[in-house]
Amino acid sequence: MIITMALTAPVSTTTTLLDIAASLGLEARKTDDGAGADVVVVAGSIPRGELDLPGIVEVKEKHPAFMLGSREARPRVRTIVRVGDVEIGAGTPIVMAGPCVVEDRDELIEIAHAVKQAGASILRGGAFKPRTSPYAFQGLGERGLQHLADAREATGLPVVTEVMEPDQVEMVAHYADMLQIGARNMANFNLLKRAGMVRTPVLLKRGFSATMDEWLMSAEYLLAAGNPNVVLCERGIRGFDPAFRFNLDLNAVPHVKQVSHLPIIVDPSHGTGRRSLVGRMALAGIAAGADGVIIEAHPRPESALVDGNQTITPEELRKLTRQCEAVASLLAYTDAPLSMVAGD
Amino acid sequence: MIITMALTAPVSTTTTLLDIAASLGLEARKTDDGAGADVVVVAGSIPRGELDLPGIVEVKEKHPAFMLGSREARPRVRTIVRVGDVEIGAGTPIVMAGPCVVEDRDELIEIAHAVKQAGASILRGGAFKPRTSPYAFQGLGERGLQHLADAREATGLPVVTEVMEPDQVEMVAHYADMLQIGARNMANFNLLKRAGMVRTPVLLKRGFSATMDEWLMSAEYLLAAGNPNVVLCERGIRGFDPAFRFNLDLNAVPHVKQVSHLPIIVDPSHGTGRRSLVGRMALAGIAAGADGVIIEAHPRPESALVDGNQTITPEELRKLTRQCEAVASLLAYTDAPLSMVAGD
Amino acid sequence: MIITMALTAPVSTTTTLLDIAASLGLEARKTDDGAGADVVVVAGSIPRGELDLPGIVEVKEKHPAFMLGSREARPRVRTIVRVGDVEIGAGTPIVMAGPCVVEDRDELIEIAHAVKQAGASILRGGAFKPRTSPYAFQGLGERGLQHLADAREATGLPVVTEVMEPDQVEMVAHYADMLQIGARNMANFNLLKRAGMVRTPVLLKRGFSATMDEWLMSAEYLLAAGNPNVVLCERGIRGFDPAFRFNLDLNAVPHVKQVSHLPIIVDPSHGTGRRSLVGRMALAGIAAGADGVIIEAHPRPESALVDGNQTITPEELRKLTRQCEAVASLLAYTDAPLSMVAGD
Amino acid sequence: MIITMALTAPVSTTTTLLDIAASLGLEARKTDDGAGADVVVVAGSIPRGELDLPGIVEVKEKHPAFMLGSREARPRVRTIVRVGDVEIGAGTPIVMAGPCVVEDRDELIEIAHAVKQAGASILRGGAFKPRTSPYAFQGLGERGLQHLADAREATGLPVVTEVMEPDQVEMVAHYADMLQIGARNMANFNLLKRAGMVRTPVLLKRGFSATMDEWLMSAEYLLAAGNPNVVLCERGIRGFDPAFRFNLDLNAVPHVKQVSHLPIIVDPSHGTGRRSLVGRMALAGIAAGADGVIIEAHPRPESALVDGNQTITPEELRKLTRQCEAVASLLAYTDAPLSMVAGD
Repeated sequence: MIITMALTAPVSTTTTLLDIAASLGLEARKTDDGAGADVVVVAGSIPRGELDLPGIVEVKEKHPAFMLGSREARPRVRTIVRVGDVEIGAGTPIVMAGPCVVEDRDELIEIAHAVKQAGASILRGGAFKPRTSPYAFQGLGERGLQHLADAREATGLPVVTEVMEPDQVEMVAHYADMLQIGARNMANFNLLKRAGMVRTPVLLKRGFSATMDEWLMSAEYLLAAGNPNVVLCERGIRGFDPAFRFNLDLNAVPHVKQVSHLPIIVDPSHGTGRRSLVGRMALAGIAAGADGVIIEAHPRPESALVDGNQTITPEELRKLTRQCEAVASLLAYTDAPLSMVAGD
Repeated sequence: MIITMALTAPVSTTTTLLDIAASLGLEARKTDDGAGADVVVVAGSIPRGELDLPGIVEVKEKHPAFMLGSREARPRVRTIVRVGDVEIGAGTPIVMAGPCVVEDRDELIEIAHAVKQAGASILRGGAFKPRTSPYAFQGLGERGLQHLADAREATGLPVVTEVMEPDQVEMVAHYADMLQIGARNMANFNLLKRAGMVRTPVLLKRGFSATMDEWLMSAEYLLAAGNPNVVLCERGIRGFDPAFRFNLDLNAVPHVKQVSHLPIIVDPSHGTGRRSLVGRMALAGIAAGADGVIIEAHPRPESALVDGNQTITPEELRKLTRQCEAVASLLAYTDAPLSMVAGD
Repeated sequence: MIITMALTAPVSTTTTLLDIAASLGLEARKTDDGAGADVVVVAGSIPRGELDLPGIVEVKEKHPAFMLGSREARPRVRTIVRVGDVEIGAGTPIVMAGPCVVEDRDELIEIAHAVKQAGASILRGGAFKPRTSPYAFQGLGERGLQHLADAREATGLPVVTEVMEPDQVEMVAHYADMLQIGARNMANFNLLKRAGMVRTPVLLKRGFSATMDEWLMSAEYLLAAGNPNVVLCERGIRGFDPAFRFNLDLNAVPHVKQVSHLPIIVDPSHGTGRRSLVGRMALAGIAAGADGVIIEAHPRPESALVDGNQTITPEELRKLTRQCEAVASLLAYTDAPLSMVAGD
Repeated sequence: MIITMALTAPVSTTTTLLDIAASLGLEARKTDDGAGADVVVVAGSIPRGELDLPGIVEVKEKHPAFMLGSREARPRVRTIVRVGDVEIGAGTPIVMAGPCVVEDRDELIEIAHAVKQAGASILRGGAFKPRTSPYAFQGLGERGLQHLADAREATGLPVVTEVMEPDQVEMVAHYADMLQIGARNMANFNLLKRAGMVRTPVLLKRGFSATMDEWLMSAEYLLAAGNPNVVLCERGIRGFDPAFRFNLDLNAVPHVKQVSHLPIIVDPSHGTGRRSLVGRMALAGIAAGADGVIIEAHPRPESALVDGNQTITPEELRKLTRQCEAVASLLAYTDAPLSMVAGD
């Protein structure tokens, strides 16, 4: 049940609703409708007789199980997530770019300058790297986080980097402007709970074989724990064709726009695994309605320790950034459908 | 082995090569490089010593198994397929539209006029329908083909329609301007062989779980049998998420552009199964580099016998057609990558 | 709607029901309950008021869309399909074995003798072969069918072989004891319709990415066209792991036993793609409840033109045949669940 | 590189090899061949010139990336994992059973007695439960662990239960006899590292869409961190058919037996999602060569808070346990292939 209050509703209505839910043994949370009014979501139903409270303007019985993340909880506005000075979901497509892994401080700063000049507004780079093999390079750890902070200092770009376990959340949040939760950890619920306890924005990648509902329920863990700053990232699903590392599933983009108020970006680097496909699939993502892209970029892809095959150069990135902006502007100007129509 | 001749090469070189291949028990075919010169493809290798013939300019040992469809066989030009007066693959995105199934002659003509006014240049509609259930409506058959021909007469739009078995090829080719081979029949090799014996253009849909190589090998059946007029159509692969009927796999588009000279379009109606996703995914397909889209459109989607859930109105189609053209123009103008770079 | 008559019901009840359905525009078919009584299945509902006819003992409103193949149509017995003298579905697991492709008459007869001695009771071998490449060996065609007939003559083993297009049905049925419809043609509905017009038993393989319902609906095409002799064959679904050619999906076996009265066998050769996995997965299939297995066997797997990697020797087959029988006996003796419980 | 020593080799050979690897910057680990001799595995190659050390009997250059878990590291014996007094991998199939979630102490003890009488030798039950929804019951936590310890006390059955984050490893290991790492956490590498630091046996479930290599690399994290007591569990992969919750992928069983020395069990409860399929798929798993099964069992499945649909009764379990033992005995007696043949 999703209960929306008027802007003028007394605070007591919200607290009373939360109390009633608690007394009924139902999980409930308070959020806002994006325009200042309170919204209470309840995992279950409060009897209608108990809803005769001042300031309630709407009660929805029917909504997705991801209540806080649903369009029903915020029907009139979309969420904009601020990372440093950058706004994700505000209309202009955001480009996050950088190396797969942070390897060297000076090189990272060089790359940060290069991707900034290419039009990127957020720097990506892994300090803690989930690797399939225990014998592979696992990232520089906290030293890598320090390098990222130095690169931010040098360029002004906010940084996004991965966090892999609950106990790292505070440390990574200390250095980074945005926490990435990787595809392998999308259903690491304890990690989600902890990342929900800070206010640092979270980039939540979709699991390799997660359904839309499972993904949005993982976002709900973050929202339910108190962190409203969630950006989703489609990064490819597991497929049967060895031609691709993963299958970038762009159906996800208009679907998420239709059922949720959260911003969504796409990752064509992991979503294809091949440098030659990155550009076109980034553009396709923007045309599908994504609020941005995250791209692996490196001046010398062939020398990158990890994922060189799917890494483009800053020069390629510069051209791509402009094209992404042009496509987004064109579609905004011609009023392309945002899939906000009543469902099908 | 792919052997390219000079424009000035004597015909005898080509015939000699075909004779040598035959004497070695190797399958071989003659095609052209798109600019008038002969190309001979051989499934295997002719000894170098036998290649000392006048007019041979290039011999490639390494190429995909789909030889005739490969970029190697036609490295400098892309194939343009003509359907009536319409050119597919020539730069302007083509919109094919119409009902899922032909139901009634007058209604079909009404729809044909409507989609033409909306900017579509080819009329689609099923007369023979593959249905999961033997008890479901199987299409009007030849009568449906006659209605399609009447709609062409009335509007000037060429028509594309499905053919389901080898013995229907001639009949369908008699009425239609383009033969559709559906996803379920992508590996119906006898049907492909027969459709390769006519010159009518073929729209070859990708099977639900076909790899890129399997799909291009099915196209190769058409080419090897003598029909060069092949257009590929990505229409969604089978996925695990009940939110979508199929997963439109746009990675396929830049991949095909990279490895083949054949045109490719996308089908966002079947590739999503949901009306509200069709527009954005059509645009994403064009941004990915597709040469066109095929869309189920009907003035009264809710009354369509089949697939109403994924059908849009001519009004929606009109807006979409313009946006597709605008995105394609923009990307052509800004020189977006065509994935023709040396592979990765 | 499934309407079961008493053994003593007058014939007029059945014909009246079929007439009523026809007058309502509903598809309907007559079958039998396996014990001699008529059953009428109707794709839709006949009003209760019209069902006051002599001899009707049960009317089921709720049943799967594959009406003729459903347990509801034949609740008390399972279908036994006779191929020559062999009974499939009668309790003893049947082993079909032979080469992937018929290559040579004498070799085929040698193999037929070998697999017979190893315990196989049906000979398999392809004369018409669906090949991904148009340049690959496509089988011997009718000459291969003649070789199969010769091998039957020599050994007494009935033969099963693939049919690939509607117009081949009669020819293949002329030579073979059982028609195989391959995975790629599971949804080749015109082929199914034609194979439904003969009485020759059909082995219907599951498509690479077909759901249970789609597969059983394909079987329904055969049944609805008048051929009751249908055996299903699980042969592996498309998966994401390059370790396996396909993933043998044994969940299918108890599921089919629960919802249908048709026999089902498994194909561990294609379902794994690896010789070393064939034995164990055949045994697993029998333990899952399958009525038999179909195995690629050849005295010299390494010299087979096609699929040698998944082919075992007659010696290996002999041991496997005995183990399959032993597992089936053991489970029959200890009354293993047949999944015929009311669903879940 | 995998280097095997003789039983009589001096300890100095092993330490020298580890030193050489370290000096070359290569990850290396010491393990044993199962019969008392040292084995050193190196992620990379030591130059042959440096291998002239006393007691080296074999050097393998070719082996899987999961070195410690590979058959090459332990070619002559399979690993047996002891959980309490129970031996997994020693020939007799082990049955682990119990409720999905621990709900109530007394009920748990009742169930423990019931599954013990039914032939189970390990009690399963979740105290920490990964749930898709943040609003769903998340398990009793440490109180649930205490109940499990009480149930062990009451029945003598060792217990296996899930651990969800690195910091819980010691606590769960304090109460439980075996740690379960769930499918969602298969690639939670920090959790694997921590669970590798204790000696408590680990049950490592396969991720929903993990390849064989990814799964065995996750096991390698445990082995490389020092915990040799690893049991793999196939629990179903994500599929496209809504008829099944997951697709139990039994190909995995003989494959693992072929490439690894670790024991493997199967989970037909999650691998099907349907009570009516559990029995047959458990038997199929044993026939495929599994060392045991893990089954959700509850005296009143319909009243279980979680997963009642896939839960069987102790009575059903009793029959199933006997059948599993009978099938395993039969196949051991008849010497069924263990897929230990040289690969294919």
